[in-house]
Amino acid sequence: MQAKNPKDSRTILTDLVLPSETNPLNNLFGGELLARMDRAASIAARRHSRRIVVTASVNNVAFNKAIPLGSVVTVEAAVSRAFKSSMEIFIDVWVEDRESGKRSRANEAIYTFVAVDETGTPVNVPELNPETELEIERYEAALRRKQLSLVLAGKMKPKDATELKALFE
Amino acid sequence: MQAKNPKDSRTILTDLVLPSETNPLNNLFGGELLARMDRAASIAARRHSRRIVVTASVNNVAFNKAIPLGSVVTVEAAVSRAFKSSMEIFIDVWVEDRESGKRSRANEAIYTFVAVDETGTPVNVPELNPETELEIERYEAALRRKQLSLVLAGKMKPKDATELKALFE
Amino acid sequence: MQAKNPKDSRTILTDLVLPSETNPLNNLFGGELLARMDRAASIAARRHSRRIVVTASVNNVAFNKAIPLGSVVTVEAAVSRAFKSSMEIFIDVWVEDRESGKRSRANEAIYTFVAVDETGTPVNVPELNPETELEIERYEAALRRKQLSLVLAGKMKPKDATELKALFE
Amino acid sequence: MQAKNPKDSRTILTDLVLPSETNPLNNLFGGELLARMDRAASIAARRHSRRIVVTASVNNVAFNKAIPLGSVVTVEAAVSRAFKSSMEIFIDVWVEDRESGKRSRANEAIYTFVAVDETGTPVNVPELNPETELEIERYEAALRRKQLSLVLAGKMKPKDATELKALFE
Amino acid sequence: MQAKNPKDSRTILTDLVLPSETNPLNNLFGGELLARMDRAASIAARRHSRRIVVTASVNNVAFNKAIPLGSVVTVEAAVSRAFKSSMEIFIDVWVEDRESGKRSRANEAIYTFVAVDETGTPVNVPELNPETELEIERYEAALRRKQLSLVLAGKMKPKDATELKALFE
Amino acid sequence: MQAKNPKDSRTILTDLVLPSETNPLNNLFGGELLARMDRAASIAARRHSRRIVVTASVNNVAFNKAIPLGSVVTVEAAVSRAFKSSMEIFIDVWVEDRESGKRSRANEAIYTFVAVDETGTPVNVPELNPETELEIERYEAALRRKQLSLVLAGKMKPKDATELKALFE
Repeated sequence: MQAKNPKDSRTILTDLVLPSETNPLNNLFGGELLARMDRAASIAARRHSRRIVVTASVNNVAFNKAIPLGSVVTVEAAVSRAFKSSMEIFIDVWVEDRESGKRSRANEAIYTFVAVDETGTPVNVPELNPETELEIERYEAALRRKQLSLVLAGKMKPKDATELKALFE
Repeated sequence: MQAKNPKDSRTILTDLVLPSETNPLNNLFGGELLARMDRAASIAARRHSRRIVVTASVNNVAFNKAIPLGSVVTVEAAVSRAFKSSMEIFIDVWVEDRESGKRSRANEAIYTFVAVDETGTPVNVPELNPETELEIERYEAALRRKQLSLVLAGKMKPKDATELKALFE
Repeated sequence: MQAKNPKDSRTILTDLVLPSETNPLNNLFGGELLARMDRAASIAARRHSRRIVVTASVNNVAFNKAIPLGSVVTVEAAVSRAFKSSMEIFIDVWVEDRESGKRSRANEAIYTFVAVDETGTPVNVPELNPETELEIERYEAALRRKQLSLVLAGKMKPKDATELKALFE
Repeated sequence: MQAKNPKDSRTILTDLVLPSETNPLNNLFGGELLARMDRAASIAARRHSRRIVVTASVNNVAFNKAIPLGSVVTVEAAVSRAFKSSMEIFIDVWVEDRESGKRSRANEAIYTFVAVDETGTPVNVPELNPETELEIERYEAALRRKQLSLVLAGKMKPKDATELKALFE
Repeated sequence: MQAKNPKDSRTILTDLVLPSETNPLNNLFGGELLARMDRAASIAARRHSRRIVVTASVNNVAFNKAIPLGSVVTVEAAVSRAFKSSMEIFIDVWVEDRESGKRSRANEAIYTFVAVDETGTPVNVPELNPETELEIERYEAALRRKQLSLVLAGKMKPKDATELKALFE
Repeated sequence: MQAKNPKDSRTILTDLVLPSETNPLNNLFGGELLARMDRAASIAARRHSRRIVVTASVNNVAFNKAIPLGSVVTVEAAVSRAFKSSMEIFIDVWVEDRESGKRSRANEAIYTFVAVDETGTPVNVPELNPETELEIERYEAALRRKQLSLVLAGKMKPKDATELKALFE
């Protein structure tokens, strides 16, 4: 399998915040944004692997900024690192001011997907070649995040998480 | 107001076809696709005008190809011509094959939006400068479409629709 | 196949405008109205043909009047002309004032549907016999619209569009 | 206030059964049908009273027949009796066979609505004049149903429910 | 089949009132609450019978109290009496005040479900053993309600409805 | 402010998996489950704080088990630790087998909410007193998770994250 670049999986979902998606403060509901990011990320994972993909975990999502009703929201997802059969997807969320046209960052999130065949068995995926500085930075951090998640799940001993351990020395 | 290019308003909405959006044949419901295109087109009109925009008409939509459940659909909208306060938006719809990754064209549509102020009164919008060959072709056809729609609505005499009349000579 | 009258396919869909269907100005979302009209029109096409029907095109929709949240909206659809396997559906949209009970026209639209068998192959449909003056007027205009759409799609030479050409002479 | 006839409030809602409304057996979900009937009944109550109306109770609904995905369902609602500020609405539900075009009865239901002013205080509504045999029969049964519901709620003594008592003698 | 207690089927559905579920007065839509209660009641019936269950009727629902947007609503459903293949489900609805944390009763409703096998044929269900005073009271009233519903449907002669008749003597 | 126990905020949301919530494999869509958990967790945070609460982050969610269409899913959320104005919510997700009635664990997730006043300014929340062994274990792990999230966000130096550092020694 030939390695791919992050731009091969980049997925853009620009849409309005509709009334049915807002919380009592008239801002985009956290749960609804999680669902939109999941759909964009699953398309990115599918473009990288050309396989059926299923959500394996949501590693981290920070909600830094409320997104009001009627906003234009852009969700951009791309594969940030590929492992054997799993892919880490990095998601950036932007909101656009109608009058100035300026975009500002509202959120970021990291999801993991697994590629499977029709029977649900995990299958191998192509490697990822990061190109830009930001892509390389995210690629490297992905390994620390993976070790962290294995440690937290009790599937890796902290002393073996070399990348992660380095952080605390 | 400074003229803008089509790329300034280009809006991309890539999303999955969900089960709640399919008809009894398990294809994307016509009405649901019309609603998705309306949202993408309204964002394009808003990016061009930086104003509140409202749908004025749907000029033509052809459904050439069924889009099955689970497909990845990309709706691309951009302003194709600006008039005094109205904008014609050209929308291309693409479907992506999961295994080959190939995109094929599923649909195209033309919507018209009007920019309004807070009281609903129409306001002027910037002109459009088409750049590519395709953009220029769509820009020129837009005038014929506008004349046609005025003629059909009885608001322009056929003999004054010079662009359109030329077609039949 | 026995010809049918427009009243045999007339379909009435009276429903409320719900909060989940409104745009930021608290009016019925253009895309949502397009979807409601598509459902009513597809039922009319099915009643005329007694076949599976699929949306072929949306020929023209003008949004003349905003429809506020909580309104009672009536969508009335009926076949306006039948061709070989396609049917033109004319749709009238009415809004009702709660206090006076008066109905006023909010919209009209024209959709085209095709009747197909289980394999998706187009099949013949009964002819239409218009009865009232309005039905006859719409029946005749339908032919001009069909020629126009063929010309615009490049499937008919303008000089052969006799009905349409007459308009410009 | 001038009395009205049932036909003044008759409301027709013909629509498709969509995939998002079906239960695991691919039939229209009981809860979804209850919601559709509530919307149609509220429009009938509003047409009779020209007031804001709120659901007061659902008196009886029998689900006699499963309604499969893709069906055309017609909900017909009309006021069956008016009391001081409340209205009983009788709802008939029909399903249509695509091939034969025959309609068969799938359900019936009885809802009660109250007319209120902007502060939520109940206000008087016009009387109802039933005209057809069926309308008269439903009008008379409505009184028994009202007594029954008052008895069951402990707001009327069984011995005062004269209409109802007659049934058991 | 071993008899069960009401607590074996007790089902709790606590959720927010979302904007897409409210009527023009910003209160939970009657039809939406009917749908939520139907889902909770169907789970209770399924827990009692361990079978596929279908809604047979909605016997009585009173809407005593408006439930505003953003409220926390708790729907509690439990089997109140089991007959041969049908189960009466009693549903209590509570609303919670955010500041005081106090719950108040907003609604109650009674639905009937039937247990069926894969072919849709009714099958026997376990008996119910009510335990608390409230459970016993509801268990006994259920028989009167069943007789009443048979009488109203013309399937039982009033004179044979011994439980019910006693009420009017 | 008086400390509270986890049971004071425990929130149970038992509901069916509906067709509109499933992915192409007919399993509950990851994004939809994220949204359900967000709603249940926000109610738990609100019960603990009696304040308006907003989602601050999703710390970790693992999708271990597909949840098929028609399943009964129970989401249980409770505050696992309170900090100054933020609360960590631990969420357990259970699926129930219809025939055996056995519940099995499908998922767990950790969300963080912040309590705010009407202007959106964070406000203090009561402390949490864990009682059971499981509650105490989750309470202690919450501090490590908080340090970890501060370290990852670059808001705490790794050497100051004493609880976390201990893991790697």
